[in-house]
This record gives sequence, C-alpha cells and structure tokens, in this order.
Amino acid sequence: MLNFSSYSFIGCDTDRHRADIVLFGAPFDSTASFRPGARFGSSAIRSESFGLETYSPYQKRDLSEIKVYDAGDLELCIGNTEKALEHIELFTAGVLDDGKLPVLLGGEHLTALGAIRAASKRYPDMHILHLDAHADLRDDYLGQNLSHATVMRRAWELVGDGRIHQFGIRSGDRCEFDWARGHVDMHSLGLDGLSSCIKDLEGKPVYFTLDLDVLDPSVFPGTGTPEAGGIGFSELLGAIIEIGGLRLVGCDLTELCPVYDQSGASTATACKVLRELLLSVGTRK
Amino acid sequence: MLNFSSYSFIGCDTDRHRADIVLFGAPFDSTASFRPGARFGSSAIRSESFGLETYSPYQKRDLSEIKVYDAGDLELCIGNTEKALEHIELFTAGVLDDGKLPVLLGGEHLTALGAIRAASKRYPDMHILHLDAHADLRDDYLGQNLSHATVMRRAWELVGDGRIHQFGIRSGDRCEFDWARGHVDMHSLGLDGLSSCIKDLEGKPVYFTLDLDVLDPSVFPGTGTPEAGGIGFSELLGAIIEIGGLRLVGCDLTELCPVYDQSGASTATACKVLRELLLSVGTRK
Amino acid sequence: MLNFSSYSFIGCDTDRHRADIVLFGAPFDSTASFRPGARFGSSAIRSESFGLETYSPYQKRDLSEIKVYDAGDLELCIGNTEKALEHIELFTAGVLDDGKLPVLLGGEHLTALGAIRAASKRYPDMHILHLDAHADLRDDYLGQNLSHATVMRRAWELVGDGRIHQFGIRSGDRCEFDWARGHVDMHSLGLDGLSSCIKDLEGKPVYFTLDLDVLDPSVFPGTGTPEAGGIGFSELLGAIIEIGGLRLVGCDLTELCPVYDQSGASTATACKVLRELLLSVGTRK
Amino acid sequence: MLNFSSYSFIGCDTDRHRADIVLFGAPFDSTASFRPGARFGSSAIRSESFGLETYSPYQKRDLSEIKVYDAGDLELCIGNTEKALEHIELFTAGVLDDGKLPVLLGGEHLTALGAIRAASKRYPDMHILHLDAHADLRDDYLGQNLSHATVMRRAWELVGDGRIHQFGIRSGDRCEFDWARGHVDMHSLGLDGLSSCIKDLEGKPVYFTLDLDVLDPSVFPGTGTPEAGGIGFSELLGAIIEIGGLRLVGCDLTELCPVYDQSGASTATACKVLRELLLSVGTRK
Amino acid sequence: MLNFSSYSFIGCDTDRHRADIVLFGAPFDSTASFRPGARFGSSAIRSESFGLETYSPYQKRDLSEIKVYDAGDLELCIGNTEKALEHIELFTAGVLDDGKLPVLLGGEHLTALGAIRAASKRYPDMHILHLDAHADLRDDYLGQNLSHATVMRRAWELVGDGRIHQFGIRSGDRCEFDWARGHVDMHSLGLDGLSSCIKDLEGKPVYFTLDLDVLDPSVFPGTGTPEAGGIGFSELLGAIIEIGGLRLVGCDLTELCPVYDQSGASTATACKVLRELLLSVGTRK
Amino acid sequence: MLNFSSYSFIGCDTDRHRADIVLFGAPFDSTASFRPGARFGSSAIRSESFGLETYSPYQKRDLSEIKVYDAGDLELCIGNTEKALEHIELFTAGVLDDGKLPVLLGGEHLTALGAIRAASKRYPDMHILHLDAHADLRDDYLGQNLSHATVMRRAWELVGDGRIHQFGIRSGDRCEFDWARGHVDMHSLGLDGLSSCIKDLEGKPVYFTLDLDVLDPSVFPGTGTPEAGGIGFSELLGAIIEIGGLRLVGCDLTELCPVYDQSGASTATACKVLRELLLSVGTRK
Repeated sequence: MLNFSSYSFIGCDTDRHRADIVLFGAPFDSTASFRPGARFGSSAIRSESFGLETYSPYQKRDLSEIKVYDAGDLELCIGNTEKALEHIELFTAGVLDDGKLPVLLGGEHLTALGAIRAASKRYPDMHILHLDAHADLRDDYLGQNLSHATVMRRAWELVGDGRIHQFGIRSGDRCEFDWARGHVDMHSLGLDGLSSCIKDLEGKPVYFTLDLDVLDPSVFPGTGTPEAGGIGFSELLGAIIEIGGLRLVGCDLTELCPVYDQSGASTATACKVLRELLLSVGTRK
Repeated sequence: MLNFSSYSFIGCDTDRHRADIVLFGAPFDSTASFRPGARFGSSAIRSESFGLETYSPYQKRDLSEIKVYDAGDLELCIGNTEKALEHIELFTAGVLDDGKLPVLLGGEHLTALGAIRAASKRYPDMHILHLDAHADLRDDYLGQNLSHATVMRRAWELVGDGRIHQFGIRSGDRCEFDWARGHVDMHSLGLDGLSSCIKDLEGKPVYFTLDLDVLDPSVFPGTGTPEAGGIGFSELLGAIIEIGGLRLVGCDLTELCPVYDQSGASTATACKVLRELLLSVGTRK
Repeated sequence: MLNFSSYSFIGCDTDRHRADIVLFGAPFDSTASFRPGARFGSSAIRSESFGLETYSPYQKRDLSEIKVYDAGDLELCIGNTEKALEHIELFTAGVLDDGKLPVLLGGEHLTALGAIRAASKRYPDMHILHLDAHADLRDDYLGQNLSHATVMRRAWELVGDGRIHQFGIRSGDRCEFDWARGHVDMHSLGLDGLSSCIKDLEGKPVYFTLDLDVLDPSVFPGTGTPEAGGIGFSELLGAIIEIGGLRLVGCDLTELCPVYDQSGASTATACKVLRELLLSVGTRK
Repeated sequence: MLNFSSYSFIGCDTDRHRADIVLFGAPFDSTASFRPGARFGSSAIRSESFGLETYSPYQKRDLSEIKVYDAGDLELCIGNTEKALEHIELFTAGVLDDGKLPVLLGGEHLTALGAIRAASKRYPDMHILHLDAHADLRDDYLGQNLSHATVMRRAWELVGDGRIHQFGIRSGDRCEFDWARGHVDMHSLGLDGLSSCIKDLEGKPVYFTLDLDVLDPSVFPGTGTPEAGGIGFSELLGAIIEIGGLRLVGCDLTELCPVYDQSGASTATACKVLRELLLSVGTRK
Repeated sequence: MLNFSSYSFIGCDTDRHRADIVLFGAPFDSTASFRPGARFGSSAIRSESFGLETYSPYQKRDLSEIKVYDAGDLELCIGNTEKALEHIELFTAGVLDDGKLPVLLGGEHLTALGAIRAASKRYPDMHILHLDAHADLRDDYLGQNLSHATVMRRAWELVGDGRIHQFGIRSGDRCEFDWARGHVDMHSLGLDGLSSCIKDLEGKPVYFTLDLDVLDPSVFPGTGTPEAGGIGFSELLGAIIEIGGLRLVGCDLTELCPVYDQSGASTATACKVLRELLLSVGTRK
Repeated sequence: MLNFSSYSFIGCDTDRHRADIVLFGAPFDSTASFRPGARFGSSAIRSESFGLETYSPYQKRDLSEIKVYDAGDLELCIGNTEKALEHIELFTAGVLDDGKLPVLLGGEHLTALGAIRAASKRYPDMHILHLDAHADLRDDYLGQNLSHATVMRRAWELVGDGRIHQFGIRSGDRCEFDWARGHVDMHSLGLDGLSSCIKDLEGKPVYFTLDLDVLDPSVFPGTGTPEAGGIGFSELLGAIIEIGGLRLVGCDLTELCPVYDQSGASTATACKVLRELLLSVGTRK
C-alpha cells in the first residue's frame, strides 16, 4: 500500500470517531497581508513534529497511548475577524457536542476567543486558566474591540468576575492592571500561586488558554512580541502536568511565529509543549 | 557646535521653506500587529542612505544641486486605514499648496492613495503613471475596498478612464485584466511603450506611483509579494530619467519590506532609486 | 459548512477521478538527518502557493480552467534510497494506468528517477527533456550509484543513447562532458537549440525533468548547490510554454530548498514556475 | 494638526527645558566601514520601543510620570575616535550644566568614556558602577589605547583607585584580573556583593555604566562578543531597581548590535531595560 | 618573518611531539549532500576561537599553561560511515600510542564512536561518561545500525553493562528508556548524581563524550535537534571542572551546527566549553 | 595513510616549489572589532570550494592541469593598516622573486594595495586593470588616506597617469569622476571598451584587481556595499577569459563578505570566479 504523509501532528492519527481529543489549527493573525506571522504557527508545529519523539520521559507516557484526531487547519477568513471567530466557535461547538476535548493551535491569541465562546455556552460556569506575558485586558485597542490585546476582556464578558485566573503576566498598561483587581484573578510576573489555584478549580469546568509568549524569549524568541522576564520551559512543563488533574473542557496553544526564530528552536519547543499537554490531558482512560 | 544626525535622507537637508521637493514617509502597512513589513520601509531608506553617494554618475548630478526637505515620517493611525489615508492626503495637500513637489515613501502601496487624492483634487485632469508587478485593480479584496490590491481601482474612481498608465504588470486575477481593457492603459509584463506614453503625457499634470516590486525579485527580494519576471534596475533607471521631462505633481516609492532581505541589498537599491528619482525630477532650476 | 484548508497547491482541487493531471510530492533528499533541505520543497510550494494568483497573464489562462488533483506528499522512507524510488515508481505507474499525467514535486532531483522508471516502462521509446545546471551523468558518486549526481546516467540506462536532451548544463566533471558526447544530446550553458529540439520531439512521448537550479542563483538562491551563470526566469518561462505542444507523459520540478532563501523569493518563483507548467501542459481540453 | 513620529524613545517626549533626564544616542562603533554593529543600537532601540508598554508592572510606574527628553543621536565622526569622544563629552557636559541627568545609548562601550569624562570633571570624587561581561581593563589593545577593551582603564585614570566597582565580569586576560586586584573593586562572574556595594555608595556621586553583554547570550545574543555564563534578565532588573536609590550623575547602556539577533528579542530586551532604568532613576519628584 | 594564521584553536599551538593533548576535527555528519550541518562544527570552532580569551576566570588558568596540539580536521569519507569511523579510530589510536590525550571535535555525535573504539581497545575496562539530550540507545534507526541515534548502543557493545554513565537525557523512545534500565547507568533530565558518579570513577579509565545539545536550546540553539529543558552553561561548566580529577583517556565535543544559529552565540559557547574542557583536563603537569 | 583536509582551495594542492601560481589570503577589513566582514572572505572561499567542480565547461580545462599552491591566510595585524599592507607586500614580493604569479584573496579591496606595491616595484611600467563598482579614487576618506575608498588613488601614486584602467565604475563622488578624467582611464557603468583595452595592453606587465562588487547585487549580495546596476556573471566571466592572454604579474579578488548572504550563493559565485580566473591565467604551460 502507498502511504501519504498525513499532515497531522506526530502520533495523532486516531480517526475522528474514536478520538478523545480533537486537535485543530486556527491559522489567523488578523492581518490582511500575505506574509508570515502567527498564522503559520499551526502548520509549522505539524511539519516539525516529525523531529520529536512520541514518548515523554517526563510523564513516562507515549502519544500512542492516547487517542487524538488532528483535524488539520480551519480555512479562516483573513481580514474578517468576526467571521473567523464564528468559524472557530462553530467548529469547537461540534467537537464539544461529540463529547470530545477541543485543542486549538493558533494563530494569534485572539483565535482562542472562538473556542472560549463555544465552551462557555456549553459550560456557563466555566473558569479560564490563562498563561501569558500580556494581560490582554484592554477594552479596545487602537479602536478595535476584537484584538490580541483585548481577548481576555472579551472572555470576561462571557464568564464574569473572578473566573479568569491569569499567570505569568508581565506586560500591559496601567489601566489593565487596575481593572484586573476588581474583575480577574491576576498573578503577575510568574506562576506563583498556580498550584493552589489548580486545587481550587478541581472538579469545575476549566478552559486552559496558553499564549506561548509566557515563556522567556531566551526559550521562545519566535513570537510576535517577545517580552523579557518570562518563565522557563521546566516551569511551564510543571504547570502543564499539574493541570492534567483538572476537568478540562477546552485548551489552546497560540502565538508561535516561526519566521522570527530561524534556528527552529521555538517551533521545536512548541511541539514539545503540545506533546506534554496532550499527554497530560489525554491519558485518563 | 554640536550636530545631531538628522534622520533625513542623505543630502536632503534644505529647510522646508526653501525646498522645491518635500520628501515624507508614510509608515503604514494596514496591519494592526507590531512586527515589521513595509511600514519600516521609509525609516530603513533613511538610515541606510548613509551608505550611498550623493552623486549620480548616471545623471552627472549631485543631490547638493537640488533642494529637498525631508519632513520625516507621518505618525499614522495603524489599524484605521481611512484615517491614515486622510492624514496622508492632508499633508500632501499642504505641500501642494506651498507649490512644492510631494514625494511619498511607503509603507505599502495603498499609502499612495492619500497623495493621489490630494493631487487629483488640485489637478482634476491629472494622469497617473504606474509601475508595478500587480494590477491593483480589484474592486474589493477579501471584502475590503481599501487594500493594496484595490489601490489603482480607487485611483481610477478619481481620475476616470484612460488616465492611468500601467507598466510592468505581471500579476492579477483575470477580472482585473479584463476590466483594465475598458478603463486603463495597461502595458503588461514590462516597460514596452513607456517612451511613447511619456511623450503623450508631455505638458500634462502627472502623478508618478512606483511600487518597487515592479523590479525583479533577484534585484529586489525585500518586498511583501515577490513576483518573478520583473524588470531590471537599468530599465527602471531609464524610466526614471525619462520621466524627468514630465510636469510631475506628485511621486511615491513604496513596498520596501526591509526584513525580507537581510543582505540589505534591497534597501540599498531603494535608496539608489530614490536618489535617481529626486535628481531626475528635481533639477529643473 | 466548515472548510478546512486543503494543503493542495492553489487551484488544484479537482477530485482524483475527474482530474487530467495528478500532482504529488516526493519529500526526499537522501539524508538520514532531520534538518531541512530539498525534502521541504514540496510542502513549501503548497503553503506559499496562497500568495500566487491562479491566473497567468503570460498564457492568459487560469488554473480553474484545467483539472488538477493534488495528491499530497508521498511518505517516503528517508535513509533507504532504493525503497523510496520504488514507492515513487509505484505511485507514478498508478497515475499513468489511470490515463493521467503525473507531475512530481521534489525533493532532490534523484526523486525524478522513480517517475522516469514508471514512464519508461510504459513508453519504452520515451525521450527525456532535461533542464539543469548539472549534468548528473556520473556513473557513481562517492561510491553510490543512486545519487543526485548520477540520476541522468541511471535514466540513460533505461532509455538508451540519443534519447536524453539536456539544456542549461554548466557544471560537471570532465568525464561527464566526455561521456555525454557519445550518449546524450547535451546543450551546455544555456537553452540554445531548445526550439528545434522541441520540434524534433513532436508527437513522441516525452518526459520533462526540471531541476530548478538551471535558473541563475540571482533568481533562485534557495537550492542546494547554486551555480552561477544560469538562465533567467523569462527564458525558463518561454521553454515551459513551448513544451506545451509536446506529447508529455510525465513531468517533475525539483531541488527547491526553502531554508536557503529566507526572503521567500525562491519559493515564490517555484510556485509560479509550477503554475505556468500546469497551465502549459494542462489545457488541452 | 499633523503629527510626525518623533523618533524618540516611547514616552520620552518632554521638551528639553522641562526634562529631568536627557537621553541621547552615541552611534559609534569605532569602525571605518559602513556595515552594522553597535552603531545601530540606539536607533533600533528607538524604533522598536513602539512595541513596548510605557507602564512597568515591576516598579508600578509609568514613563508618563517622569520627565525625559530624547535628544536623538549625536552625529559622531566615525573613524576618529578621539573626536567622537570629545563630541560626547561636550554634549554630556551641557546636560550636566543644565542640572539634568544624562543617559547615553551606545554604540559600543567606549562611547561611555565621553560621558564619564564630563561627569568626572564635574564630580571629581565620583564612583563608577560597572556591569559587563568583560573587564575592559587592558592598557592598550592591539596597540590602540582607546578601545572597547580599554575603556575602564581609561576611566580609572580619571577617578583613581577603588572608585570603579565592577560586576558580572567573566572575560579578560590574566593581566587584567591581576591588575584589577590593586586598583578596582572587581566582582567577577555575577552580581554577588552588589547590594552591599550600593549601600556603601549611598549619597556619593555615582556614574552607572551598563554593557548589555553582562546578560547571558541566551537572553541577549544581539551583541558583538556574546559570552556564555551571564546574568539573567531578572537579576539585571533587580540591580537596576536597587540603584534607583543612589545619587546618580550619569548612566549609559551600550553594545546592542541589532543585526546579530534577527528575532528582535535582544532589541526588545534592551528597550525594556532602558524603560526600567529610566523609571528607577527618574521618579524622584 | 611572515606569519600565516594557523587554523588551530586559539592557544593550541604546541607542536605535536611536545603536546600532552591532541585536538582534532571529525567533520562528518553522515549525509551525502554538500550543505552544512555538524560537519562544519569543528572549523567554525577554530575560526571563531579568535574572539575568545585564552584565560579562564573560572579556573584561573590560561591555555598557554597547557600543551595542546591542534592537528586540524581529518579528511573523512562523507557517504561511507564505516570508513569514516575507521579513519577516526586509526587516528585516535595513534594519539593514544603516543601517550597523549585525544580530544575529538565533531561533527555529529556518531564520530565519537571512532574514538571510543580506539580507546576501548587500549583500555578494555574503560567507562564512558556521557552528557547528552538524547539517549542514543536505539539498536537501529531507520534500518541503519550506525547512526547518531544508535551511537551509545554501539559503545555499549564495546564496554558492556554498567560502564556507560548518562546524564542530561531527556529524549528517546520508550524502548531506549526501558532497555537502559538493565544495561546503562542513565540519569535522566539533568545532572543529578554526577558528583557521586565522578567519585566512583576515580582512578578508572574514563572516556568523556559530550553532545552539546545537552545544553538548553536557549543557550545553544545551533544544533541539529534542539530539545527544550536542557542544562545551563554554568551546570555544564561545573561538570567539566569536576571531571578534571578523573583519569581521562579520551574526550569529544560534538553536534555544533553553526548554520542554525546565525547570531554566532552557539559557536562562541562551544569555543568557551572547549577552552574550559582543555584547561580542566590539561593542567596536570 | 591518514589524510587531513588541507584548507586549500579545491584542486590547488601543488607544493610551493613546483607551483606556477601562489594563492594566498589577506583576511583584513581594517576594523578593530571581532565580528565579520570581508576578513572572512578568503576562508569562506576555501571552505565552500568543496562544493565546486574542478572542471570548467566554459574553458574546457580542469584545475588539475595547472599548478597552484595555496599558501593559506596571512596573519595580518588588524587595527594597524600600514603594517598589514607591509606584510602583504613582503609576501607578494617573495612570490614574485620566485618567478611565480601571486593571487591575493581579500579581505577588503585595500589589501590589494600591498600586492600592487610589490608588483609595481618589480615592474615600474606596470598597468593596472581594475574592475569595481566604486572608483576608489578619493585622496582621503574621513581623514584617512589608507582606506577602501582611496586604494586606487594610492595605486595611481605608484604607477602614474594613464596606467590604471577602470571598468564597471558606477559609484563615487563628483570629485573622483572629475579627477579621473586627467589621470586614469575610467570606463564607467559597465565593461564597454574592455576588449580594446586588453588588446592595447598586450605584452605589457599588467596587474589585475577585481573588487567583486563590480557584479550586480542580484548576483553578489554578499558584499559590504552592494551597488545596483552592476554587471552579470557572464560578462565578468568573459572578461576573465579575455585577460588570460595578457602578461599578468599579479591578481586579486576581494570584498566577499559571506555573512551578508546567508544563502551561500555569493560565496559559491566567488569560488567559481576564482576557478575561472586561475584557469584563465594559469594554463600557459
């Protein structure tokens, strides 16, 4: 028999019906121009995943032990943000209807909003666990209310006060930090407090949104707005393993911009983070 | 006396009042994100101009013989295209009111529309001479009617049939080529017919718009959408010298994206094209 | 309905049964290591094709007018050259059995040998038209007889004397040039003699093999062994249009190594060459 | 009103007379050749500062709360080191005469010598706090006594024994380390001892000179001579915040070479370091 | 007298007969293609060593105090792995016969096998201390039994159970980790246990093999397969200093691929690691 | 027997005594800083020459037919221009004393002056054939009289009026072009007139100095100051073949800066130019 390479993330070749997790790409970076950016993140992760082992010595598990279907990339309408978000929401809702866990690969962080909308409709009491360098809590940015800088403010409108738990935040304007105090559970600079937060969230529906620029630029320069002072890979890995105990209803991993790191190390790191995330949330047979 | 480097293009240090030509940057590339693209074109041209001689052995003239004021870069509203174009139009109108020649440095090609609007209001019978790889004649692009792919269609709405003269065009969809036949004077692939076109335009007010991607990617890879089969530097130089005889009312030079050519050759070439353009249109004392 | 991006070359979305042409990738570069090279050529061409128009102003045709199925990339056994070639041969033979035209995207030039084997079995009197910088006529290279440097020698063993017509050749060792005189129809340095060669081949079955390094490195630096003194894009375009009149039984386009040209211009050029090739050989309804 | 982008560091738009701090660039890298190096550091910092927030979550202060004038770049005489240093000294002296704090942006570290000369004339009992990977204590380097490798030796000639306090030093020849013992207060490898040193310096006039290569190359690869084993961003940030309590008479930040880090992360980090430095030394209203 | 630059690593200019250590390059990366990879590692280390000081402030020793002969690069037969290994083995055996310490510079990690073969013949009871991100314990890889992924398995066949001590391992397939338990002394993820291992090895003949990808990609992105979660430079430095007390019979340092880190920081780091390694193992006069 | 790679240009392994031509590098770029530039040109040409065939299909000759000794790189005193030139002169004089042809590999163009001094002392009636983008005729540059911008003025002081024949010149200040008229035989922009100039020089001693930036930046972006409008590879090749008939007393090839063209095409082109130059001037047995 002839084989064609599948364009799926390594080890994620379960068919849709048997899968527990559905991985899909949202190659959108809200710019009308052709040239790169985060929109190429999901395809780079897939292509480069062939340099990764399927086995994790950290979790002592292998991707072959879990059931993931990689649906490929959604064909999103570049230049029409609202429509793109609807498209993502619709797809995510379908995955949730099938009783599976959606895992979105960005694209820019705003793409997460589509998945968050779908999840919050199904789980109105949902919490959001958010790792990021940036607060993303502006009400509007340069006059636009759908922007990578406003995504968590829009999410707050869906889930309400006290339901967003932010970690790693080390950039924003003063207003965002002020506003945060009354509305979200922000932990700035690093991951301090994450373990107890995770304990509090046990049993509740949780959406996990991961902007990869929470990592330090030394580890992850391949992103649109590198922000010094971030967390290391091991800290992120620890967090990812810890959330495996939560009742997750959706996940995302965004903001890899492969062109900005021509060594390929950022893409390789994103692949490894995704493997660990899948292994952490997936092996609960 | 202490000198500060002027951030002006080399040899363009006449003060505003005594200048015949006003050079200004329009650092806009219609994207809301921070990272580069054509928006860094004008500042790269200024910075790198210090590697260029002020003397042209082609025209046997020196920038010191003409009077150019470099006004710097306009501070444009990224993310609000209409407002950015208004800003460009307003500034260009001021230059025209002062009886000087505006020369815009992009930014993306759409920025030219601001200058064209100002010029066409003052010179309703104006013609446009357009060098580009792309027809830019779409009525809308991905649902947007202000786009780098629609700029000449918008210009046509201002000047009407038979007043736009396009050269070098080698990319577009079929509709653009079909529509062109009834409305604009398109010369596809290269510069054939340019000399006779210039002869026909003698004495008439002409706006000259130059998308640098008319050059072959071998000469100019540092642009957003490189398109094989373009013209060489010498052909472009010949054209620029020829238009010196026209009654020009405005000029622009757009679409340098410095990040895509890390050898710096594209930026150096853009600098040289600008020097030749200034010398060609400026030495008419 | 939800759309997923198809990972096919732009405009090549006919389904297999209705297609006249079957495009497929052979991501092989004969190295056991993970890191890039020509093996990423076919996927780069697909990804970047979204920056290309489907319409050709050169041929005044659109990809929508022809019927191409893009089968994706074969999953080849890196590190086992013979097996990879068998895989390619088997797939090509299937395409030929269906009465369709196979178009292979490399990968390194050696991948063409798989397709040539299939085609020569079906068309024992087949000729090969070969554009390349390198003669590729060594009997062995560093002790290996299956190598990018021996591919045309292996092809000659299949088709015999006088059936291989080489153009653009400007590199090889002395033995290759000496051997060529008695066995192949070599035209060194450029494309001189191509038109009359094409006339002679009219009506005969012809396989067209295109190593993109026949282009000058100024036009196409993104290749493994750039060789100065090559042909320009327009010359190659002319050749491609001319071969449209031949009775082609297979084609390939190889040796794009995207990593070596980070401006993306080489990949964009490969996309455009492929569009023109498809339009030239495909519109025979 | 029309705005022009100011080419100043973000948030540093106080006019000269009202400012407490004067920021200025010294784009000099002691080489006669055109191509980049540290000479492009100051302009890169300005351009890229638009990707930075003006608010610091570390210090909970905003650049809008302090008064900084960005004077732009001095136009220095490349190829004549002594003259360039005189130029820097003259400008710095003017800033000091106005009772303001000079903050120099390099350029190479040698540019700091101009500012140190001016400050040491005004404050003969001045101390120097020096963070760097390299000792810079050679008496001459390749026969030149004004060099990036001799800058602190020249500074020592001005301030005398025991007044230079070096931290982070991890490279030099044996002679420098030997000589240091009798003359300067060198703390090698890291920042150990910095807090108690700062305590000792309280109330005394202190010049702070920061060669950014004190940072580890993982954090800051964009510099001329990356030296493994450096400090992290958080350590540097801590130091910068601590020195806010000193009586500073001048500061500099040097050795960003943007071309060597094409991800832009080094430049982004330099911007953030500068923001924190300005906030630390500036908010003493 | 006229001097020619020696193409030797800085400070390694003792002549062969007087030397205690013989440094040599093994520019092999097992690929038949011309383009770079680890095969350019050793020459990059030599060229760039001129940016390094000969003095180590860590060990307070200078390369001038030890006697190293740099023999240059072996001319290896690319494309014939077995022959290349024989060549390396033969050379290493000669160095050992002369009573000197061989230090091999890769090239890929597989090159170490040549040196290990020579050393294990002479010292049948030899142990191997191995720092690496990857276990390299596969029995075959893609059907090949000589591969960078099998090198330690081949070494095990020479030295037997319990004689290979691995540290830093954080990647491999499940079989490798399972197999390791019965056969090698593997310490996964980091360097925990290294000190006590070194204590145990005192007085025994030890070969030290260092795959530089044991370093974190933030510190060392210039390698073929960057693997997040590695050790820092200081940890590696500590290990290198500690092994100075062992009875070493051979060393290597492999897997620098300079092309993947165009900032040059990876190469600079490799140079510094080599300096520290030479100083640690060499100053036993 | 064990082989070491020779670090010589491919096919240039004749020993010094039997050689007709002595090739040597002058890795100098007049800058005191460590980082690259033209100083790495000669070593890049050697390293990358292994990707080149020794046979020229243009001249139908092979490097094995001529006798070239590659002496390696001179160890020049960076930071002391006069001393470096003396060093080059001394070595060149030795080659001339041995009755051999010196071929210098830069390094920047100024290095040629050392060789020209040696040759002009031996051949006081020597002519110089000069291909370059830049006139290099300034009397001083930024106050320095030994500079890449003054090299041909210094050469003129040695050989006098009418003995320097310049081709390809397309950049300089007005004074250079004015001065040229009375003193040198300048052919600006291209190679027009070269054939008749070569005819006139027949039988006279001629030094050939080639600044590779005479090539168009599309062909050769890897140089310090790319200057659009240059000649193509084929034109240069034609010139090189033509000069084979002259009585050459010295040659050089300068200004490859490998770092500025990371595709490697510029270095590959320089290698090919050198091969053709050696074959043209060398096969006169």
